[in-house]
Amino acid sequence: MKIQGTPWRSIWSIDNNNPNDPNNLNNPYPARLGIIDQTRLPFDFATLELSTCAQVIEAIRCMRVRGAPLIGVAGAFALALALREDASDAALDAALQRIHASRPTAVNLHWALTRVRDAVCALPETERAAAAWRQAQALAEQDVALNRALGAHGAQLLAQRQAQVGTTLNILTHCNTGWIATVDYGTALSAIYQAFDAGIPLHVWVSETRPRNQGLLTAWELAAHGVPHTLVVDNASGHLMQNGQVDLVLVGADRVSAKGDVCNKIGTYMKAVAAFDQGIPFYAAVPSPTIDKNWSGAREHIAIEERAGDEVRRVHGLHENAQLTNVHIAQAQTAVLNPAFDITPARLVTGLITEQGVLTPDALETRCY
Amino acid sequence: MKIQGTPWRSIWSIDNNNPNDPNNLNNPYPARLGIIDQTRLPFDFATLELSTCAQVIEAIRCMRVRGAPLIGVAGAFALALALREDASDAALDAALQRIHASRPTAVNLHWALTRVRDAVCALPETERAAAAWRQAQALAEQDVALNRALGAHGAQLLAQRQAQVGTTLNILTHCNTGWIATVDYGTALSAIYQAFDAGIPLHVWVSETRPRNQGLLTAWELAAHGVPHTLVVDNASGHLMQNGQVDLVLVGADRVSAKGDVCNKIGTYMKAVAAFDQGIPFYAAVPSPTIDKNWSGAREHIAIEERAGDEVRRVHGLHENAQLTNVHIAQAQTAVLNPAFDITPARLVTGLITEQGVLTPDALETRCY
Repeated sequence: MKIQGTPWRSIWSIDNNNPNDPNNLNNPYPARLGIIDQTRLPFDFATLELSTCAQVIEAIRCMRVRGAPLIGVAGAFALALALREDASDAALDAALQRIHASRPTAVNLHWALTRVRDAVCALPETERAAAAWRQAQALAEQDVALNRALGAHGAQLLAQRQAQVGTTLNILTHCNTGWIATVDYGTALSAIYQAFDAGIPLHVWVSETRPRNQGLLTAWELAAHGVPHTLVVDNASGHLMQNGQVDLVLVGADRVSAKGDVCNKIGTYMKAVAAFDQGIPFYAAVPSPTIDKNWSGAREHIAIEERAGDEVRRVHGLHENAQLTNVHIAQAQTAVLNPAFDITPARLVTGLITEQGVLTPDALETRCY
Repeated sequence: MKIQGTPWRSIWSIDNNNPNDPNNLNNPYPARLGIIDQTRLPFDFATLELSTCAQVIEAIRCMRVRGAPLIGVAGAFALALALREDASDAALDAALQRIHASRPTAVNLHWALTRVRDAVCALPETERAAAAWRQAQALAEQDVALNRALGAHGAQLLAQRQAQVGTTLNILTHCNTGWIATVDYGTALSAIYQAFDAGIPLHVWVSETRPRNQGLLTAWELAAHGVPHTLVVDNASGHLMQNGQVDLVLVGADRVSAKGDVCNKIGTYMKAVAAFDQGIPFYAAVPSPTIDKNWSGAREHIAIEERAGDEVRRVHGLHENAQLTNVHIAQAQTAVLNPAFDITPARLVTGLITEQGVLTPDALETRCY
C-alpha cells in the first residue's frame, strides 16, 4: 500500500547492488532484510535492516514486526538467515524452535516455518540457505495474493451490508489487521481498503487495543489511505453497538479452529459477545494459513501468550519534548496479568472471510485448506 | 479508611481554629473544603483546599474528586460555598445549574443538589449558606452510613459465594468504587473491604478502565488495605471469565433505573454481557441516592457524558524524570469519540446490593427508596 503516494511493503530484502530498491524480494542473494520498526509508529516512520536470525527474533518478540501473517513471513526469513550461519539438521531444528518460541499463539509462524523446513530438509547443506530464502520470498508473495483475494470477497460483503443499511456503513475493528500486519494489503483492512476504493461509503470505529495500542497503527494506516475513522477506547465498543452506531464487526485472527473458533487479540471475545447480544454481524478475516485444522477450538490445546506486566504498567507515547518515551501508569509493585489473545467461540461468529469466499463456521470443516 | 494506618475521608471541612484536623465536617463555620487531588494518584498523595464554588466545579470537572457519591457530596458543598457569595433565589438556581452541568450523568449530583435546595429555599437569605453547609455535612454523613450498611450486605453475599466456590473467591471489578469514590468505605469496594476484614479468602481482578484509568486508583486503595489484587487491561476481562478465573463481577453505578438498568462507567456493559454468556453472577453496588425512580432505563432519557478526545489521545503517568506528565499516544488530528458511561440492561444484572439488602432488579420496583 502507499504512504504519501509511495508504494511500500512491510518487509523486503535489501539488494547490495541496489540498496535503494525497497521492494526487491525477488533478488536471490540479498544480504539483509528490511522492516518498518512498528514500535515507533504512528509518530515516527523508521526502517531497520536485519541481517541475522537473532535480530529478526528480537524484532518479532518486541513487536517491531507484528500481525500473524507478517510474523509468519518474518520467521521464514529468519530461518533462512539462520541457515546461512549453520545449515546442519541440528541447527535447522534448533533455529526453528527458537523462532517459534518468539510468539507462540499465531499459527502462521508455525505454518511458515514448516514450509521452509519442508522445502530445504532434503537438500544438501550448501543449498539450504538459498532455497530457504526463495521459499520465504514465495511465502511473502503468497501472502500478498491471499490478502488481495480475501479482501475482494470482504469488500463484496461490505458492499452488500452497506446496501442493507442504506447509509454510511459503520464498521468496528480491533487491533491492527492492515497492510503492516501482513506483507501487503492486510486481512480485515484489505476488505475495508478495497470497499473504500470501490466507492462504498464507510466509516471505521478503531478500537484502541490495550495494552499495545495497535488501534493507533490502524488509525495511522486508515489516515494514510484517506479512510474515515474514529478512535475509541476498548471499553466503548459495546456502547456504540447498543446505540446503533455499528453495522458490522470485522476483525482478523491469529488462529482459527477446524470448527471456526477464532483466537485473536485480547478483547475480541467481548466484542463478539456484545455484537451477538445486539444482533450485529461479526466477521473474521482469515487467510488460509491462519486456519489450524488440528485445533479443536479448546482453550487448553493452544498456548495463549502471556506477555510482560510492564506492557500494562507503562504506556509508550510521544512526550512534550518530542521524544518517544514510556510513562508509568501503575506502580512497579502492582501485580499484573497480561494475556495477549482470547478465543471467540464459533457460535458467536457470523462468518469467516477467506481467499475462497465468505464461509459460515459450519462450512469451514468441509473445505480443503 | 486508612492510609498507612491513618484514618482519612475523601472530603472534609477545614476549621480555621484547628486547621490540622482533617475530619471536622461537623464544624459549623468552616472556611474551606479539603479534598485529595485524585488526578495525582497513585503516585502522589496531595490534598487541596477549595474555598469557592468555582474551585469545586473545576475539581469535579477535572476529576480531582470523582465517583458518583463523592461528586454528589462535593456538589452539595459547592452550592453552600456559592450561597456564601450570593444567597438570592436567582443565584441559588444559577449555581445549581452550573454545578449540575459539571458531570451530568450520575444521578447523585442532582439528588444532592436538590436536597440542599429543599433545605434552604424557605429560609431567609442570611441563613441559607450556613444551612446549606449543614445539609452538605449531613449528606456526607449519610453517605458514610449508607456505604457501611451496603457493604455489610455485600460482604455477606461475597461470603456465600465464596462458600459455593470453596477456594479463594475471584472478584472482577471495574473503575473505582472505593472509599475515595465516596466520602468513606466505597460502594462495591465497601463489600470487598468488609468481606476481607471478616477473613473471607478473596482476590480482586482490577480492570484498568481506560481512558481515565480509575482501575489504578482501585489498585492503590486495595494495596493500601492489603487486599490481594491483580491489574488487567479492560480487554482481558472476558478471557478471565472464559477461563474460570472469575467467580463474580461486582461494579458500582452512576444511575440505576426503576427497573434495575445500570448506568455505569464505560465498559461495564461488555463485562455484564460476557458474564451472562459465561453464567457468572453480575452485581452492582447501589446506595439508594443512585436509584432514579424517574428513569425508565431508556438510553435517550439520560445524558451520557461525552468527554474530551484528548483523554483518549493522551495518557497521564509518571515519567522517568519522576514528574507526572502526559504522553500523546495518538496524533492530535485523529478523530476520537469518548463516551464516559454505558447502560447495562437489567436482564444482565443478577442483583443490586443496596443498604437495605441484596435485591433482584425485579424487586427494586416494589421498594421505597
